[in-house]
Amino acid sequence: MSARKIAVIMGSDSDLPVVKKALDKIKSFGIEYECHIMSAHRTPRAVCEFAERARGNDFGVIICAAGMAAHLAGIVAAHTTLPVIGIPCSSKNFGGLDALLSTVQMPSGIPVATVAVDGAENAAILAIQILALSNDVIDAQLSVEKRKMIEKINEKDRNLQEQLASED
Amino acid sequence: MSARKIAVIMGSDSDLPVVKKALDKIKSFGIEYECHIMSAHRTPRAVCEFAERARGNDFGVIICAAGMAAHLAGIVAAHTTLPVIGIPCSSKNFGGLDALLSTVQMPSGIPVATVAVDGAENAAILAIQILALSNDVIDAQLSVEKRKMIEKINEKDRNLQEQLASED
Amino acid sequence: MSARKIAVIMGSDSDLPVVKKALDKIKSFGIEYECHIMSAHRTPRAVCEFAERARGNDFGVIICAAGMAAHLAGIVAAHTTLPVIGIPCSSKNFGGLDALLSTVQMPSGIPVATVAVDGAENAAILAIQILALSNDVIDAQLSVEKRKMIEKINEKDRNLQEQLASED
Amino acid sequence: MSARKIAVIMGSDSDLPVVKKALDKIKSFGIEYECHIMSAHRTPRAVCEFAERARGNDFGVIICAAGMAAHLAGIVAAHTTLPVIGIPCSSKNFGGLDALLSTVQMPSGIPVATVAVDGAENAAILAIQILALSNDVIDAQLSVEKRKMIEKINEKDRNLQEQLASED
Amino acid sequence: MSARKIAVIMGSDSDLPVVKKALDKIKSFGIEYECHIMSAHRTPRAVCEFAERARGNDFGVIICAAGMAAHLAGIVAAHTTLPVIGIPCSSKNFGGLDALLSTVQMPSGIPVATVAVDGAENAAILAIQILALSNDVIDAQLSVEKRKMIEKINEKDRNLQEQLASED
Amino acid sequence: MSARKIAVIMGSDSDLPVVKKALDKIKSFGIEYECHIMSAHRTPRAVCEFAERARGNDFGVIICAAGMAAHLAGIVAAHTTLPVIGIPCSSKNFGGLDALLSTVQMPSGIPVATVAVDGAENAAILAIQILALSNDVIDAQLSVEKRKMIEKINEKDRNLQEQLASED
Amino acid sequence: MSARKIAVIMGSDSDLPVVKKALDKIKSFGIEYECHIMSAHRTPRAVCEFAERARGNDFGVIICAAGMAAHLAGIVAAHTTLPVIGIPCSSKNFGGLDALLSTVQMPSGIPVATVAVDGAENAAILAIQILALSNDVIDAQLSVEKRKMIEKINEKDRNLQEQLASED
Amino acid sequence: MSARKIAVIMGSDSDLPVVKKALDKIKSFGIEYECHIMSAHRTPRAVCEFAERARGNDFGVIICAAGMAAHLAGIVAAHTTLPVIGIPCSSKNFGGLDALLSTVQMPSGIPVATVAVDGAENAAILAIQILALSNDVIDAQLSVEKRKMIEKINEKDRNLQEQLASED
Repeated sequence: MSARKIAVIMGSDSDLPVVKKALDKIKSFGIEYECHIMSAHRTPRAVCEFAERARGNDFGVIICAAGMAAHLAGIVAAHTTLPVIGIPCSSKNFGGLDALLSTVQMPSGIPVATVAVDGAENAAILAIQILALSNDVIDAQLSVEKRKMIEKINEKDRNLQEQLASED
Repeated sequence: MSARKIAVIMGSDSDLPVVKKALDKIKSFGIEYECHIMSAHRTPRAVCEFAERARGNDFGVIICAAGMAAHLAGIVAAHTTLPVIGIPCSSKNFGGLDALLSTVQMPSGIPVATVAVDGAENAAILAIQILALSNDVIDAQLSVEKRKMIEKINEKDRNLQEQLASED
Repeated sequence: MSARKIAVIMGSDSDLPVVKKALDKIKSFGIEYECHIMSAHRTPRAVCEFAERARGNDFGVIICAAGMAAHLAGIVAAHTTLPVIGIPCSSKNFGGLDALLSTVQMPSGIPVATVAVDGAENAAILAIQILALSNDVIDAQLSVEKRKMIEKINEKDRNLQEQLASED
Repeated sequence: MSARKIAVIMGSDSDLPVVKKALDKIKSFGIEYECHIMSAHRTPRAVCEFAERARGNDFGVIICAAGMAAHLAGIVAAHTTLPVIGIPCSSKNFGGLDALLSTVQMPSGIPVATVAVDGAENAAILAIQILALSNDVIDAQLSVEKRKMIEKINEKDRNLQEQLASED
Repeated sequence: MSARKIAVIMGSDSDLPVVKKALDKIKSFGIEYECHIMSAHRTPRAVCEFAERARGNDFGVIICAAGMAAHLAGIVAAHTTLPVIGIPCSSKNFGGLDALLSTVQMPSGIPVATVAVDGAENAAILAIQILALSNDVIDAQLSVEKRKMIEKINEKDRNLQEQLASED
Repeated sequence: MSARKIAVIMGSDSDLPVVKKALDKIKSFGIEYECHIMSAHRTPRAVCEFAERARGNDFGVIICAAGMAAHLAGIVAAHTTLPVIGIPCSSKNFGGLDALLSTVQMPSGIPVATVAVDGAENAAILAIQILALSNDVIDAQLSVEKRKMIEKINEKDRNLQEQLASED
Repeated sequence: MSARKIAVIMGSDSDLPVVKKALDKIKSFGIEYECHIMSAHRTPRAVCEFAERARGNDFGVIICAAGMAAHLAGIVAAHTTLPVIGIPCSSKNFGGLDALLSTVQMPSGIPVATVAVDGAENAAILAIQILALSNDVIDAQLSVEKRKMIEKINEKDRNLQEQLASED
Repeated sequence: MSARKIAVIMGSDSDLPVVKKALDKIKSFGIEYECHIMSAHRTPRAVCEFAERARGNDFGVIICAAGMAAHLAGIVAAHTTLPVIGIPCSSKNFGGLDALLSTVQMPSGIPVATVAVDGAENAAILAIQILALSNDVIDAQLSVEKRKMIEKINEKDRNLQEQLASED
C-alpha cells in the first residue's frame, strides 16, 4: 500500500530556503510530494481550490509555511478535513513571534498542527509520521532515522571526550 | 451626495459586546451599515463572497473584528479594493497580542488598517473619517464631536478642581 | 477497518478541565481512547514506557497537555514514531506563553504538533483528522461537522439580523 | 474628479529608506503627494499646524512614520478629522514593538490606522484605497495591481515547478 | 527659599485612582501643586500651552500619567525645558507595557523620566527629590522618610519573628 | 551660583560606548562631572559609599548605566536622596528589555528616573534639566539647544524637498 | 553531622503568602531556618550585613523572594560565597516577568539560582538538595518524597480511570 | 575531604562554545568534572541513566545547557536528588526566551536552578559554591576570586580616570 502525497505550500518565494529542508527530508523517505508558492492574501482563490481538492487529489497532509500575519495554514485548514501543518517563518522584526501566534492560535473547530519557528524539517517528519500510521515501511524508516540520530549524538560525545582528554 | 454604507463583520458572536461600540458610533452619525457574523475559518466562502461584492453593494469600508489568530480582516482585504479596518479582539491568554500581530503584520500588497485591541469605537470613527472625505456634512459632524470631546475633558478638569479645592 | 485509539495524557489533574473538551470531542466521534495523568517530571518512567509501547498497543496519536515548562509532549515524542500533539495549558502568570514555547520550539528530529493555548478541542479534531486519513467513515463525519459549524454560524448571523432589526 | 493629495511625514530622516517605498507606490499611481520631515517631539508646532491645515490644503490622507515612542501619528490625528495612517518603524532594540504599541494603542476618539512594522508600501496602498472610494479610475488601477500580484505569484510558482522538476 | 510647584496632569479621569497616591505624597511634604486632566489627543492645545508656560508659572517639575499609547509626557516634554516625569498607567490588555514603552522610549533630545507602571508614589518622590536639590528643608524631610521606611520594615520583621516563634 | 556636579557611573566598561554620549552632552554644557566604573554586584561597597556621600560631595544628580539584571541605579537610589537616573543598556539577548524592567520597576519609596534603552544622551539632558531648575544660565542653554534642534529638522526637511524636487 | 541552616528573606511582607510554602517544606524536613523581611532598597545595610555574616552564622543557603525590579537575591549574592536562590514574585502588571528577568539575568561572577515565578516550594527543595549533598539522611528523605510524589500521581490516575469508567 | 565531581551536559554540540566558559571556570578551581553531549529528545535513555547514577558516581551537581524547548535540565532533575543547574542557550529567533521559560518554569517538586541566558560561567560558579559548602578550601578560593573581581573593576576605573583626564 503506497502512501499518500505530501503538499508543501509557501506564501512567498522568500520562504523557499526554509521550506527546502522539508522537501529534502520528504525526498529522503521516497515519498511523493508537490510544492507550490500560493498566498492566502495574494492568490486566495488558488489556495482555497487547492485545499478543497487536496484529499481527492491523493494528498494526505498539507504543510504550509508563511511569515508575519501568517494566514496560509489557517485558510488551508478552513477548506479541508486533511491534517494541516503550519511552519511559522521568522521575519526581520519579531523573530517569528507574529507568525507563530498567527499560526497556532486557531479557533475551535479548525486546528493547525504548528511546529517551531522555521521548523521545516520537523514539519516534514510530522507529515511522515502521519503517513506512517498506515504504512509500516515508512514507520520502519522512521525508527531507523531515530536510531541514526542516537548514534550521531553518541559519536559527537565520543569526539568531545577525545577533545577534552587531549586538552588536559 | 449620500455616503456609502459601512460593513461590520465579526468572527464570532462572542465579539459582539466589543463590536457594539462600533455600531453605536456609526448609528450616532446616521450612516447606514450592515453587521454580520462570518468566520474566515468556519464560513470562509461567505466571507470571500461578501468581500468581493462589497464595493458593488455600495459599501465604502469594511470593519472586521476577530480574536486569537485573527485572519478575518486579512482575508477580507485579500478579496476587495475597499479599505479594510481590523479590530484585534482580546481573548483570555495573551491580552489580544496574538490578534494584534495577526491583524497588523500583513504582507506587502494587502493592507489592513489596524486599531487598538478591542478598539471598536475608533474603528467606527476611522471608517467615518474615510467616508467624510467625500462628504462635508459628515466631516462637520466629526468636527463637532471633536469639540464635544474637548468640552467633556474640560468639564472633568473643572470638577477635579472643585474636588481638590474641597479636600484642602 | 477500525481506527486506532487516541491516547490523551496530562501532566497534572489540574489540566483535566481543559482536557475534558478533547475527550468529549473524541467520544462524539465514537473513537476509542485512553486518558491518563502522567508527568514528565514526577513519573518520567511511566511516561517513557507508555510512549514506547503506544504504537504496539494500537494507539494512533498521543495528545499531551501540560503547563509551565511543559515537557510532556516533547518527552513522549522522544520515545515514539507516532504523531504527538501538544496542548500548552495556561497557568497563572504568563497566559500559557511558557507552555507554548516549551511545547512548540522542539529541536529538529522530534516534532510536536502544537495547537493553541488550552486548545484541547482542536487537539482532538487534529487527532481525528489524522485517523481519518485511513478511514473514510471518520472523514465523512468530519465533513458533516464542518457543515454543521457553517450552519451554526449562519444561524447566529440570522439571529443577529433579527436583533439588529428589532433595535431600529 | 481628481483625487486629493497624500501627505507623508516622518519623525526623522533615518526613516527615509522605509518611507521611500510609500512614495514610490504613490508615484506609480500618479497621485500627488507631499513628503516632510517633522517631529512630534522636536518640531511639535510645525506638526500641529500641518495637521490642522491639511484638509483645507486638499490633502485626503496623512501617512506618519516614526520609531520608538512613536507619537507622530497620534499627535497628527489629534489635530485633524482626516484619516491618519501610522507606520511603526523598527529600531535597534525592540524590533519595532515599541513603535507598534505607541502607534496602535490610541485612546477612544482619536484613531490611527496602523500598518505593519516598516510597512510603508501598505500604508501607501491603504491611502490609495481610501482615495479610490470616490475615484473609479484609481480603483480600477488597484484592481489591475491586484491581478498583477496574482500573476507574479503564479509565475514564481511556475518557475519553482521547473526548478523542482530539473532537480529530480 | 520656597520650593517651586509640582504639576500633576493625567490623560483621563480614569487615571485618578493611580494619580491620587502622587498627590497624597506631595501634600505630605507641604509642597504646592496643581493637578489637571488634559489629554495629548483630546485637548492637545491645552497641553501645549500648559507646558510652555509651566516654568514661567513657577512650576519645577511636571508629572504626567497616561495609559495605552501614552503620549502625554512626551508631548509635554516637547514644549518645556523643565524635567518631566512619566507614569505609565496599566490598562486592561497589556499590563501597562504599551504605556511603558510609549513613555520611556523617547528619541534623543526630549527625555521623559519614567517610573514604574502605576508608580505614582515614586513619581512624586522623584519630583520632591528634584526640588530638594535647592531646598535643604525638603531634603531633610526626605531623609526622615527614608529612616521611617527602614523602621517600618524592621517592625514588620519583628512581627514576623513573633509570628514564626508562636507557630513553633 | 554654580551648578552641582553630575555623577555618571556604569556597571561595566563594556557600557562605555553608550555612556560616552552622556559625557559629551554634559561637557558641551560646561557642567562638572565625574565618571566611574562601579558594579552593584562586583564592588557593592564602593557603590554604597559613593551614593551615601554624593550629596555631601556636591553632586546634584547620579546617572547609572547598566545592562541585564541592571541593579546599579536601584542600589544607588537606595543610598541617597538625590535624584537617580537609570540608563538600561541593551545586551545580546533581550534588546535591553531585561535592563529596562530591572531599572524602571522600582518599589514604592525608591524611584529611579528611567530613560530609553541605551538613551545616554537623554539621561544627560534630564540631569541638566534638573540642575537648570536653580540655574537660569543652564536653562537658557537648554532653550538654545531646543531651538537648534528645530532648525536642524527644518534644514533636513528643506534638503528633502530639494531631493524630491530633483527626482521628479 | 547536622545540616546548616537555611535563610529565607523577602523584600516585602506582601511576599509572605508565597514564601510560606518554602517555610512549610523546610519545616517538613526538620531543617533549621531563619526567615526575615529585609529590602535591598529600603534596608540595604541590613541586607548586606546579613549576607556577609551568613556563612559564619552557619547558614548553608540563602533563599530570596522579591517582586518587580527584584534586586534582593542579586545584592545578597554580591556579599556572600554561599549559593543564593531567587524566587521572582509575580505582581499585578507583568505576571512576574520583570522579577524573573531582574533575578535571573545576573552578570558573570555573581550567580543567582533562579526558580519559577512564585516557585517557593521548589526554592526550598533546591536548598534542601544542596544541604543533602553532605547529609545522607536528608538525601534519603528527598528520595522518599520523590517516591511519594510518584505514588500520588499514580493514585490520581487510578481515580481518573474510575471516573472515566463510571461515565461510560 | 575532596569535593565531588561536576557533570556538565549539553543537548547539542552547537552549545559547546557557550559551555566552554563553564568548563574553563571549573578547571581553574581544580575541580574534577565530566562533560557530555546528550539530548533529552534524541538520546533520552542515556540522559535518564546518567541522571539516575550521578549521585552514586560521585557527582555533586549536574549542569545542563540546552536551547529552544530546553527540556534537558528538567528531565535530568526528574531522575536525581542532586541539585541541577540549567543554562538556557539563546538561539536565532527568541534571544533565548524560549529556553529560559522552558528551563525555569518547572512544576512544584522538581526544581532547576536557572542562570542567565548563555550564563555558563555563572552556572559553574554556582556549582562551585554548592561544593564549597562542605569544602573550606574551595570556599577560600571563591573569596579570592571575589577580591580579584573587585580589584579588576577598580583597575578599570583607574584606567578610565586617566583616559578622561587626558581627554580634558
